Amino acid sequence: MTTNRLIYLPLGGAGEIGMNAYVYGYGAPGEERLILVDIGVAFPDMDTTPGVDLIFADITWLEQRRDQLEAVFITHAHEDHVGAIGHLFDRLGSPKVYARAFTANIARGKLAEYGHGDKAVTVANAWPEQLEAGPFRVGFLPISHSIPESSALVIDSPEGRVIHTGDFKLDVTPLVGEAFDEDLWREVASTGVRALVCDSTNVFTPHAGRSEVVVGPEITQLVNDSTGMFVATTFASNVARVKTLADAGVAAGRSICLLGRAMRRMIEASIKTGVLSDFPLVISPEDARNIPRENLMLIVTGSQGERRAASAQLARGKHMGLSLKPGDTFLFSSKTIPGNEKGVIHVINSFSELGVDVVDDTSGLYHVSGHANRPDLAKMHEVVNPQIVIPMHGEHRHLREHTKLAEQSRRKGVLAVNGTMVSLSGNAPEIVEYVETGRTYLDGSVQVGALDGIVRDRIRMALNGHVTVTVVLDEGDEPLGEPWCDLMGLPETGRSRAALQEVLEEDLSQFLNRAGKKMLSDDKKLEEGLRRVVRQSAQDEIGKKPEVTVVVSRLT
Amino acid sequence: MTTNRLIYLPLGGAGEIGMNAYVYGYGAPGEERLILVDIGVAFPDMDTTPGVDLIFADITWLEQRRDQLEAVFITHAHEDHVGAIGHLFDRLGSPKVYARAFTANIARGKLAEYGHGDKAVTVANAWPEQLEAGPFRVGFLPISHSIPESSALVIDSPEGRVIHTGDFKLDVTPLVGEAFDEDLWREVASTGVRALVCDSTNVFTPHAGRSEVVVGPEITQLVNDSTGMFVATTFASNVARVKTLADAGVAAGRSICLLGRAMRRMIEASIKTGVLSDFPLVISPEDARNIPRENLMLIVTGSQGERRAASAQLARGKHMGLSLKPGDTFLFSSKTIPGNEKGVIHVINSFSELGVDVVDDTSGLYHVSGHANRPDLAKMHEVVNPQIVIPMHGEHRHLREHTKLAEQSRRKGVLAVNGTMVSLSGNAPEIVEYVETGRTYLDGSVQVGALDGIVRDRIRMALNGHVTVTVVLDEGDEPLGEPWCDLMGLPETGRSRAALQEVLEEDLSQFLNRAGKKMLSDDKKLEEGLRRVVRQSAQDEIGKKPEVTVVVSRLT
Repeated sequence: MTTNRLIYLPLGGAGEIGMNAYVYGYGAPGEERLILVDIGVAFPDMDTTPGVDLIFADITWLEQRRDQLEAVFITHAHEDHVGAIGHLFDRLGSPKVYARAFTANIARGKLAEYGHGDKAVTVANAWPEQLEAGPFRVGFLPISHSIPESSALVIDSPEGRVIHTGDFKLDVTPLVGEAFDEDLWREVASTGVRALVCDSTNVFTPHAGRSEVVVGPEITQLVNDSTGMFVATTFASNVARVKTLADAGVAAGRSICLLGRAMRRMIEASIKTGVLSDFPLVISPEDARNIPRENLMLIVTGSQGERRAASAQLARGKHMGLSLKPGDTFLFSSKTIPGNEKGVIHVINSFSELGVDVVDDTSGLYHVSGHANRPDLAKMHEVVNPQIVIPMHGEHRHLREHTKLAEQSRRKGVLAVNGTMVSLSGNAPEIVEYVETGRTYLDGSVQVGALDGIVRDRIRMALNGHVTVTVVLDEGDEPLGEPWCDLMGLPETGRSRAALQEVLEEDLSQFLNRAGKKMLSDDKKLEEGLRRVVRQSAQDEIGKKPEVTVVVSRLT
Repeated sequence: MTTNRLIYLPLGGAGEIGMNAYVYGYGAPGEERLILVDIGVAFPDMDTTPGVDLIFADITWLEQRRDQLEAVFITHAHEDHVGAIGHLFDRLGSPKVYARAFTANIARGKLAEYGHGDKAVTVANAWPEQLEAGPFRVGFLPISHSIPESSALVIDSPEGRVIHTGDFKLDVTPLVGEAFDEDLWREVASTGVRALVCDSTNVFTPHAGRSEVVVGPEITQLVNDSTGMFVATTFASNVARVKTLADAGVAAGRSICLLGRAMRRMIEASIKTGVLSDFPLVISPEDARNIPRENLMLIVTGSQGERRAASAQLARGKHMGLSLKPGDTFLFSSKTIPGNEKGVIHVINSFSELGVDVVDDTSGLYHVSGHANRPDLAKMHEVVNPQIVIPMHGEHRHLREHTKLAEQSRRKGVLAVNGTMVSLSGNAPEIVEYVETGRTYLDGSVQVGALDGIVRDRIRMALNGHVTVTVVLDEGDEPLGEPWCDLMGLPETGRSRAALQEVLEEDLSQFLNRAGKKMLSDDKKLEEGLRRVVRQSAQDEIGKKPEVTVVVSRLT
C-alpha cells in the first residue's frame, strides 16, 4: 500500500518576481489530487524576449495531469497572479476557478476574451468559509496588499494546514479593503500550521513596512501647494492609492479625471463589487478640457513609463485633448520596477522639456510598498508559527535570504525553486522530485516555448542584421546570372567605401565561379559556402557577421 | 566691423549622462577659433540600439570647422569623456590633444588602436600652468572625482574667465589623487568668473556628498568578518576604491588578485604615471588557485553585470581557474547605473544559486558617489561666484533642476541642451544659434548615423521576425514553379495548426494565380503585393506582421 502524501510544487514565481503558479497535491505518489494557486504572467523585455507579448509559466506538467486538477484558486487580481487565466484555461481542461468578488470580476474579463462566460469563475467568500476541492478544504483569509480583497489561502488537507500568504503586507489601516487582522490570523494558526508558504519580494528591505494611510497627508499637501494642473500616476490596481489621490484632489477643489483604460476598469470593478463605495465623482476628458487647469487633477496610467499608457502620451504632447505646460505638476505615486528605469526616466525628461515639475518616489513620501518587508516577514513567521517556512514569490536571492531569515528563528526553511516538488508529509519536508519547468511565450496569438529558438533568432537579427542571398541555377547546376543580396539592418557602406551590397555580391560571384560541380549540385554545401562568404566578407567590410538566409532556386 | 564673441556649444552630454563633448569658441561670428572639451562615448542598449558597439556625439558641425579647431582638452579618463578620441581623431583633423599624465596614458591607448603614436597627446601639468590654444589660455585645475587626476578647466579668453568643472565632487580626503582645495579654487575665482559650466548628474541627491575615506573602515570590517573567499567589484577606473579594497584585503591577511583587463590596465596606468605609489603586491590567477580561499581576495571587473566581465564569468562558473562556492562573499562596491539593473540582478541571482553571499550598495556603507550632490553644487556656485551658471553633463531633468538651483541664489542660469550655441559676450548670455546635433553609432567597425534607419530595421526584425519570399518568373513574366518562404524568428505553426511556412506559401501561390500580367510584369507592384499577402496571412495565423524581404528572380 502506498502512503498518501501532501506535496508543494511551484511552476512559476519561485525563481522570479512574476508569473506565480503553485501546485499543491494530496494522494498516493503520482496520483495526487491537485489544486493550482494563481496563474500569472511575467512581462517581456527587449534584452531577452523581443516581440513577445506575455510570459507564462510552462504548465505542461499540470496540463498532462489535468484530470487530477480539482480547482484553481486566485489570491488576488494582480497580473502576475491572474494574468494567464484566459490564455491557459483551456489547456488546463476548463477547471473550476475560485476567487473573491473583485478578483473574480477581473478574472472573468480575461476569460471573456477567450469566449468563456462568467460561470467559469466562482465567487468565494472570505474566511471562515471553506471550499471543497478533492482532499482539500480551502479558505480565503483576508490580508492587506496594494489591491482590494487580496487573500491568503488556508489550505487544509488530511496532512494538516498550510497557509499560502499570496502577496501581502501587514497594514492595519489600508484605507480600501481589509486590514491585517492579527487576532484572526493567530486564531487560524492556533490549530497548528504545517507550512507557511510566504511572499519573499521585499525580504531585503530592512525597515518595517509603512501603512497606506501615511501617504494621504503628504499627497494632499503636495496637491494643495501646486498651482497648475496636477497629474498623478500609480498602478491602476492600487485602488486605495487612486482613491487617496482623488480625495486629495477634491480636498484641493479640483475635478478628477481618470485617463487610461486600466484605471477606469479597476475603479469600475471596485465599485461594482462593493470594495469601493465613496469614490469621488469623476469627469470625462471632454469635460476636463473646459476646466481651468488649477481646478483639474488627472489620475493616469503609465507609472512604469509604458510607451502607450496615458503618462507617456501626455509626455509626448496632447492626449485626449489634454496637454501639460510649464507650472503643471506630475507625481509618480509608485515605485519603478527594476528594468523599467529607462522608460520612466524618458517620460520624466519629456515632462522636463515641457517645463512640467515631476515629483517621484525618491523622497519616500508619496508611495509605500504593498509587500511585507524583512521585519514584517519575521512577524508573519511568529504569528503563524509554522513547522516549515517555504519562501515563494521571489528571485533566487530573495528565496535564499528568506530561508535564512526563517532559520534565524529556528524554523525549518525550504528553498524550493520552480520545479522542486516538496513533500510536506513525514517528519521533515523532503524534496521528492524535480519537474521540468520553464517559460511559455505569448507571441502575437501563438504560445511558443522559451527554448524553441524563435526569440534567439530574433535577437541575433537585432544584433547582427540580416542578409538574403539568392542564387538561381539552371538544369545543369550552372549559375544563371549573378547572385544577389538584400540587406536589412546593415550599413550601406563599409571599409572599402563601396556599397556593402556590391562587395558581398562580388565576393559571392567569385565564390560561385570557383565552385566545382560537387558544390553546385549539393544544396546544403552550396548554402553553407554562400553563407560563409557573406559572413566573412561582411566581417572584413563592416566588422560584423550578419544572419544569412540563402535561397537557391533550381530550374528543373 | 564684426564684434568678436565668446561662445559655448555642447555637442554631447547636455541632454544625457554620457558622450560629453563641449565646444568653446572665440572670434567673429562664424569664424571663431574653437576648442573642444572632452570627447566621450555613451553605451548602447538592446531597447534602442541593438548591435551597436558605442555611441558618440555627432561631431559633423565641428568636423566641418576643423580648420578652426585649436585643440582638444580631456578633463579625465572616464569613457564618457575620453572614449571617442580614437574613433573621431581623424575626422577632427588630428588636432592637438591635451590631458594630464594619467588621462593621457589612457587616451594614448585609445589612439594607438588607430595607429597614432604617443605624440598625439600632450601631457599638461596642473594649474597654475596654462596652455595657449588660439585666443584661449587653458589650465587644468585639480578637482576630486572617482578617477585620478580629474581636472576642471580654467578657460581664459579676451572676454574673461570660464570654469568648466568636468565631473567632480568636493572631497578633501579622496585617498588617491588630489583633494578639493577650496582655497586654491577661491583664489582662481577671485579674478571674477564669467561662467561656471558645471556637472549636473547628482543634482537630485539632497544630502551632501561623502568622502571616499568613509568606505575604507566599512569595507575592512566586512572583509575581516568574512570567512571564505572574498571577491569585490567596482569601476576599474576608481583607483582609490580599488586601493581601498586591496588594502582591506591585505589587512585581513589576504593575497590580492586582479581579474579583468580594464582592472589591470587602470592600476598599471596609475602606477606608471605616479598617481598610485603604494598599491599592494598582486598575484596572478594561476598563483591564486593555490592559495586557501580564506586567504584570497579577488578584485574584479563587471560592477554593472556586463556579460563578458569577470564578475559575470565567475557567476556562471569557473573563470581563470577560479570559482566561488558556499561561504564566499561577493561585494558590489559600486552603484548600478540606470538601465543595468537586470544585468546586475542576474549576476546576483547566479551567485545566490552558488550559495555565495552578495553584499550590494543598498546599505550605502560600501560605496560613495564621485559626483557633487545638490548642496555641493550650491557650494561650488558660492566658491566660484560666477555671473552665469551653465549646467552640463545631465539629462534634461538634471539641467533644468540645476538651472533652478542656480537661480535660487540669484545667479543667471542657462539651460542649454546639445546644439544650443550660447554667446557669453555682452551684458547677458544669449542663445545665438541652434546647431543640428545627434548621435553617431559605432556599429562593428563602421560609423553610422542614428537616423539612418539601420537600427530601426533591426528592432523591427527583433519584434516581428523576418520572412524571405522568393518568386522566379520566366521570360514571359509567368511564375516558374511555386513561390517559397524562408522564416526567421517566427513560430512554426499558428492558428490553423498547419506549418506557417506552408500556409504562407499557399496564400502566395493563390495570389500569383490571381495576379494579372500588369502586376507580374511590374517588380515594384509584385513585391508590394507579395509583401502584403505575407503580412496579412501571418497576422491571421500568428497575430503578428513580420518584416518581409521579397526576391523576384526574372529569367531573361
